[in-house]
Amino acid sequence: MKKRTEYCGLITEAYIGQEITIKGWINRRRDLGGLIFIHLRDREGIMQVVFNQEKNAELFALAESMRHEYIIEVTGKVVLREEAQINSNIDTGTIELEVTEAAILAKAKTPPFTIDDDQPVADELRMKYRYMDLRKVRMMKNLKLRHQTTKAIRNYLDNEAFLDVETPYLTKSTPEGARDYVVPSRVYPGTFYALPQSPQLFKQLLMGAGVDRYYQIVRCFRDEDLRGDRQPEFTQVDLETSFMSAEEIQTLTEGMMKKVVKETLGQDIQVPFPRMSYDEAMGRFGSDKPDTRFGLELIDLQEFAQNTSFKVFQQALENGGQVKGLNLKAKADNFSRKDMDGLTDYIKQYGAKGLAWVKVTEEGLNGPVAKFFAEDSETLVAAMSAEPGDLLMFVADKKEVVAQSLGELRLKFGREFKMIDESKLDFLWVVDWPLLEYDEDEKRYVALHHPFTRPKEEDVQLMEEHPEQVRAQAYDIVLNGYEIGGGSLRINTREMQEKMFEALGFTPEEAEQQFGFLLGAFDHGFPPHGGLALGLDRLVMILAGETNIREVIAFPKNGKAFDPMTNAPSEVSDRQLKELSLRLTVED
Amino acid sequence: MKKRTEYCGLITEAYIGQEITIKGWINRRRDLGGLIFIHLRDREGIMQVVFNQEKNAELFALAESMRHEYIIEVTGKVVLREEAQINSNIDTGTIELEVTEAAILAKAKTPPFTIDDDQPVADELRMKYRYMDLRKVRMMKNLKLRHQTTKAIRNYLDNEAFLDVETPYLTKSTPEGARDYVVPSRVYPGTFYALPQSPQLFKQLLMGAGVDRYYQIVRCFRDEDLRGDRQPEFTQVDLETSFMSAEEIQTLTEGMMKKVVKETLGQDIQVPFPRMSYDEAMGRFGSDKPDTRFGLELIDLQEFAQNTSFKVFQQALENGGQVKGLNLKAKADNFSRKDMDGLTDYIKQYGAKGLAWVKVTEEGLNGPVAKFFAEDSETLVAAMSAEPGDLLMFVADKKEVVAQSLGELRLKFGREFKMIDESKLDFLWVVDWPLLEYDEDEKRYVALHHPFTRPKEEDVQLMEEHPEQVRAQAYDIVLNGYEIGGGSLRINTREMQEKMFEALGFTPEEAEQQFGFLLGAFDHGFPPHGGLALGLDRLVMILAGETNIREVIAFPKNGKAFDPMTNAPSEVSDRQLKELSLRLTVED
Repeated sequence: MKKRTEYCGLITEAYIGQEITIKGWINRRRDLGGLIFIHLRDREGIMQVVFNQEKNAELFALAESMRHEYIIEVTGKVVLREEAQINSNIDTGTIELEVTEAAILAKAKTPPFTIDDDQPVADELRMKYRYMDLRKVRMMKNLKLRHQTTKAIRNYLDNEAFLDVETPYLTKSTPEGARDYVVPSRVYPGTFYALPQSPQLFKQLLMGAGVDRYYQIVRCFRDEDLRGDRQPEFTQVDLETSFMSAEEIQTLTEGMMKKVVKETLGQDIQVPFPRMSYDEAMGRFGSDKPDTRFGLELIDLQEFAQNTSFKVFQQALENGGQVKGLNLKAKADNFSRKDMDGLTDYIKQYGAKGLAWVKVTEEGLNGPVAKFFAEDSETLVAAMSAEPGDLLMFVADKKEVVAQSLGELRLKFGREFKMIDESKLDFLWVVDWPLLEYDEDEKRYVALHHPFTRPKEEDVQLMEEHPEQVRAQAYDIVLNGYEIGGGSLRINTREMQEKMFEALGFTPEEAEQQFGFLLGAFDHGFPPHGGLALGLDRLVMILAGETNIREVIAFPKNGKAFDPMTNAPSEVSDRQLKELSLRLTVED
Repeated sequence: MKKRTEYCGLITEAYIGQEITIKGWINRRRDLGGLIFIHLRDREGIMQVVFNQEKNAELFALAESMRHEYIIEVTGKVVLREEAQINSNIDTGTIELEVTEAAILAKAKTPPFTIDDDQPVADELRMKYRYMDLRKVRMMKNLKLRHQTTKAIRNYLDNEAFLDVETPYLTKSTPEGARDYVVPSRVYPGTFYALPQSPQLFKQLLMGAGVDRYYQIVRCFRDEDLRGDRQPEFTQVDLETSFMSAEEIQTLTEGMMKKVVKETLGQDIQVPFPRMSYDEAMGRFGSDKPDTRFGLELIDLQEFAQNTSFKVFQQALENGGQVKGLNLKAKADNFSRKDMDGLTDYIKQYGAKGLAWVKVTEEGLNGPVAKFFAEDSETLVAAMSAEPGDLLMFVADKKEVVAQSLGELRLKFGREFKMIDESKLDFLWVVDWPLLEYDEDEKRYVALHHPFTRPKEEDVQLMEEHPEQVRAQAYDIVLNGYEIGGGSLRINTREMQEKMFEALGFTPEEAEQQFGFLLGAFDHGFPPHGGLALGLDRLVMILAGETNIREVIAFPKNGKAFDPMTNAPSEVSDRQLKELSLRLTVED
């Protein structure tokens, strides 16, 4: 084997006249009678290599035996292509290699699919042959982007005096949060480690240890039912600091994002990012992670609804609910009555009982509920800033239902009518989150972020009487409508932490049993601290312009947490089960 | 809370006259009537702050209430200390802070142990209060050293065009290697993921994907009975390359180690590292990871033993064994007959049947077996390069027993007689490993490295008839007698891999079931490739001058894979077990 002198994709006209050796996969092969042209591919790109029968019949015969995805090594001289041969689709399109030596390093069967970004391939097939799927330019680009992203993050945090500290993966199972993946212990029969959902408590304890600034790019695990952008394991950029304010942590994060975007996409983004309160985000966009790349905001119709004769609106208010609307400008003609029924069905999945709508025409309002606005149509038109051609939609319901159903409708229209400027990166802080929310299933309050989040000083007095009114010192970072991270200042005293556990319905004994080590640590000089965790997969996905995090993970699981390549999870031997003191309650 | 202007430990005389704000833990507090001196500690070091009753009685009263490990924030002016107050034990020993503002940020109970490197504390107590143990200067230094090490490695590999690619933690359990930690699947009852013992197959598949140069600093898991330098989870610097030779991979690794040592300890190390064959290492040092910082090599006595009248020696040879000796120069007088009995017991744990020994005196040989050398004592003395005062020891046994017992004895003497230059960093490559070894328990051949290691081309023909003679294209990197890493070129064809599985006693069906995805990948254009994995914990341990990897892991487990701080592993709820279709075979 000769030594490679350069990657295929990095050869430029500066190499003309030089002898080089390159290695790679055969991406394409054309036999033009006496000349064989091969597109040789490596991770950096493609280089054309030419075998000339006249010049070397033996090499030519070898080239005739080469097939797609064979790995070859070729040596030769870089030359300028003839004018007619220039290919502007590849970076090396003006040059080619005249082969003087060649060897086949590995043969290949006919591939299960063509290594070509433009050929759609079924997801399961892509995952089964992931090692071939990753050969595609798009996937290799995504892997590199991920590398560049983590590198930029590490360099930034190194520079800001953060210490990269590794925390355990075999940890203690705790009842709060999502479902844990557990790992049976062989040494202590009947006990289990848990894989971390996040290194939350360890990073807080590192603050107690005086590490002052910690970060880690770390795998986290959640045994949840999966969605498009969820995986059983995911990667978090986890950081924690002592003695910093929420604003300082946000500023630091902004600096990091600025560097990441600059070093991956070459773009300059504006800092500071806008801050929006949770209430404002829910009110204007019906979402705690608003996509601010387009308008179509929710319009509050409380005042109108108080005075209208439309009973449905009034009742919603009387029941403590809300009435809000969307004005889809100039799109009235795009929607048939049947289309509107479809939209009604669409928002019913978010709990809405119905969607009221009218079209604005030169002659006035039009549609099934138009008659209810006979007397106050002008007030409505004014409140909605409506003009002829607009489609107006209304939801009157509980606050949460109004927000979610109109928020989702807004996003649907935004996508369908291409209102979203896809070239934009719209960062946003959502701040002033509620500390707790009432869980109807569990019949108790649960932490909206996690039980270690510090409440706002001025709201602490509400903890017992009106827990739902307490705001947290918490902040989420949103990018293009995705929550890419969240953080908070944390509780650092036993007294406050016990108050929090009490609000969550823990008995003192339960609190002590589960979190005694944290409460104990608070007794020994624990600094004020706070931090943030970013979802790396989602961040890279957005930077890569992808819509599923699977595209930026080298070996993801499918939608059922299964790996079609290795067939994991799989059965284990009886000996293994016995060693772990376990028995299955299912038949093999 | 005011903004901190600098870390305590980083304040220098350049700050004199400036007003600064620092925050930290009270490490020491002296009340000298009207003056209170506090040593304030943060992660970078210690700064003395002074409260003066005359200047500010209110602040002084506050300072009187301060105790060890309280966290305080102080503002004041940096001044030069009086001559008599200069403390050369701390970096900031010539300066102090005259406090003008102060606040207590967190109180602390009396600590379970003093935060002082020089006070020995029981291991279990240190681990239970790890967040306090890490406050020690030594531990904080170790965390920083680990950070610097990984940073140097990442920068080096980034620069060498390696891509950092994350591989899954929820993988497939395979029968080869150590015992897996497994993770029950909820979605597929009765099946399990395995936590990776190393990302070996994934990194090979990345080579199949064309990543060309991969690295990852990654957690690995082994459910083994633990030893001093083992942990259930450990961190590996994992790398893999395509198209490179073993020598090129070694050179690359040497460059990496050179950078690491330079950037952590500031030392220049010599490259290339010496290469020694496995046979030579075993022969000269009785170890496959020789500590080459000192001599005391094993002396081969085959020639002498063939001709001596000492039956034990001759028999050993006749049985296919070896006779080797150690010459402990000028130490004969240090050992009584009882001491020698102790040494005999010591090597019996390595399978030796006995230890023959003689002392060399001016009058000839002395000791229980001296009489057997009556006729050839001079030949023996010459073969051992012995002089009066030397203690000669011999083991005649099977090759492996001779190597291990004398090898361990050599290390014991090396430590006890301080023959080892602790300031040295002795790197070494051990190459030409056997591919397979016969496992007496399993009655079959097992891979000495792993089943994916490529045999030497010239030895492949021996695979079926003399598998034990086949050498591998494998290399270990040894530092100061520790194996800090190992690597190899890998098999990249189905044909060779199937041959290897056959040698390991797999049926074709078993091979296909367990490793079918790898064999399949070889069919689709798989490049020649090879790599290396370094044990990060052990490397940092050696650089830190520690002797247990626990000292360089933030939150280690104890010797029984238990965490005394969080009490992991612990019981999980019946609901969790039911969801996982598991039942315990032990009583609660």
